[in-house]
Amino acid sequence: MSDLLSRDDVEAARRRLAPYLSPTPLRRAFSVPGGRGWLKLECWQPTGSFKVRGALSILTALDASERGRGIVAASAGNHALGVAFAVQALGGDMPATLFVPETAPRAKVDKLRTFPVTVVEAGATYDEAAARAVEHAARTGATIVHAYEDTRTAAGQGTAGLEILEQLPEVGVIVVPVGGGGLVAGIGTVVKEARRDVRIVAVQAAASPSLRDSLAQGRALLEYAAAPTLADGVAGGIGEIAFAHRHLIDEVVVVPEAEIEEAMAALVSHDQVIAEGSGALAVAALRSGRVSAPEGRPAVAVVSGANVDARVLGRLLARG
Amino acid sequence: MSDLLSRDDVEAARRRLAPYLSPTPLRRAFSVPGGRGWLKLECWQPTGSFKVRGALSILTALDASERGRGIVAASAGNHALGVAFAVQALGGDMPATLFVPETAPRAKVDKLRTFPVTVVEAGATYDEAAARAVEHAARTGATIVHAYEDTRTAAGQGTAGLEILEQLPEVGVIVVPVGGGGLVAGIGTVVKEARRDVRIVAVQAAASPSLRDSLAQGRALLEYAAAPTLADGVAGGIGEIAFAHRHLIDEVVVVPEAEIEEAMAALVSHDQVIAEGSGALAVAALRSGRVSAPEGRPAVAVVSGANVDARVLGRLLARG
Repeated sequence: MSDLLSRDDVEAARRRLAPYLSPTPLRRAFSVPGGRGWLKLECWQPTGSFKVRGALSILTALDASERGRGIVAASAGNHALGVAFAVQALGGDMPATLFVPETAPRAKVDKLRTFPVTVVEAGATYDEAAARAVEHAARTGATIVHAYEDTRTAAGQGTAGLEILEQLPEVGVIVVPVGGGGLVAGIGTVVKEARRDVRIVAVQAAASPSLRDSLAQGRALLEYAAAPTLADGVAGGIGEIAFAHRHLIDEVVVVPEAEIEEAMAALVSHDQVIAEGSGALAVAALRSGRVSAPEGRPAVAVVSGANVDARVLGRLLARG
Repeated sequence: MSDLLSRDDVEAARRRLAPYLSPTPLRRAFSVPGGRGWLKLECWQPTGSFKVRGALSILTALDASERGRGIVAASAGNHALGVAFAVQALGGDMPATLFVPETAPRAKVDKLRTFPVTVVEAGATYDEAAARAVEHAARTGATIVHAYEDTRTAAGQGTAGLEILEQLPEVGVIVVPVGGGGLVAGIGTVVKEARRDVRIVAVQAAASPSLRDSLAQGRALLEYAAAPTLADGVAGGIGEIAFAHRHLIDEVVVVPEAEIEEAMAALVSHDQVIAEGSGALAVAALRSGRVSAPEGRPAVAVVSGANVDARVLGRLLARG
């Protein structure tokens, strides 16, 4: 579980993903003062988040026998959409079961049902849905598609890092939101093997600084009691894989809630980009000046996802 | 001024634009009920609107002597951003002057000033700024970059139509917002030369149905007293070029203000897409069922632009 990734793993994932996903745009950030900010728009993936990279990375790595037994995942959010899209992209004929908690928003469940997957509403919490997914896998031989605790997932997420290096070779720092940590492990791997001069900054919400605390305690906090946060997509513990790749992270920045809100509003106002709370973390970190950047070189904020409740966004904008 | 475009003109424009612009995504529209709607995301152009196609089409068509004398345009909106981006993309060394009305929003003027162009605030209205641009051109020999009344502009806009036909060959109807009408002339040209079975539907706001009235009166209403509308990007008269291409338009649909608001909110809620009022017109037309579509075939809404005031958007979302 804590194998180290190599750039070759990520390059291989990119070759597998290429038929199904185009690179996401890298754009100047008008929401970051000073003119040196750029946005890696993972929020413009067909599923609204980077998670589709990891899901496709696993699904395209399965052999014929594994495909025949199918896949299973637990999520009602960005990971579920990534898995559903990946199943459809690969032809839609692989048995695929998604366990979603009964508390999941109706709109998200309805969206999942438009894909060729079996959606099972089960359990009051994510953990209960995840337990059902494990049972299902044991019974059917289906492959569990984990959102971050699988090196194939992290290799898929790392393909975003390959794109950044090609799109902006002069980049000086890349700011990456960290929940489970597959994204930072993947991006860190490709960046540090190729370009040690590029800083990797992890960013978390002040409501859930599980990576910062893991580093302080010298062990991976796989569970973490987060306070309520707009950045619910990255709330909770980090993964073993992320912790095993901690040497690739130069700095952890923690952002208070008010700055996440301001970053979401600024992204809409100045860049016409919708980001969910966790998606706006990196922009919040750059706007606050909390990120130390190599002098004069550009800073890339990974805008990881877009799936925010429209009414929440509306309140932020109407206020601003 | 009323020359007819050919598909060859648009193909030539595409070859000129290819080094500077990637095709925009075509995505399933969760905001259009029934599962047959698709979004052509021109709102995701680097400038937030399709206008950059037309601007680049003109600038890349200039010879060395014309480039030396430079270009001039009047706008504080999407066209100005398109021209500014095009100047920068071509190396930033062409003399370029943008006349913007003194009433233009500060944020838009500030954004323009980040590009290698000379921004001159002049005149209380668009018409006064446009008059200054004409004077400037007469004095300096600069080329006027018109937002729609130039076949090179319309050829550039038509490149969006080439992309749609390639991205979704089974398309049955394409719904296009009409202001000056360069976009519908360009898209109509490529679609009707290649695929007469694909319907072209023009959409306008009920506050400014200048194309509908032009067709009824048998003459181009180049000026039109529009009522206030969220779709200010398409308010006012149509162009001679658009009128000369009216045989390519199968139907004109007119959308009331409330449906524009609903479409903007639905695009954020269901597709995580920011559209300005005129950008949401085509989605509004599809949501209302006002567009007759060939049975069972997909309908493409051209989401023409994203540059909406964040507070206006916030009010719509908070209400919904």
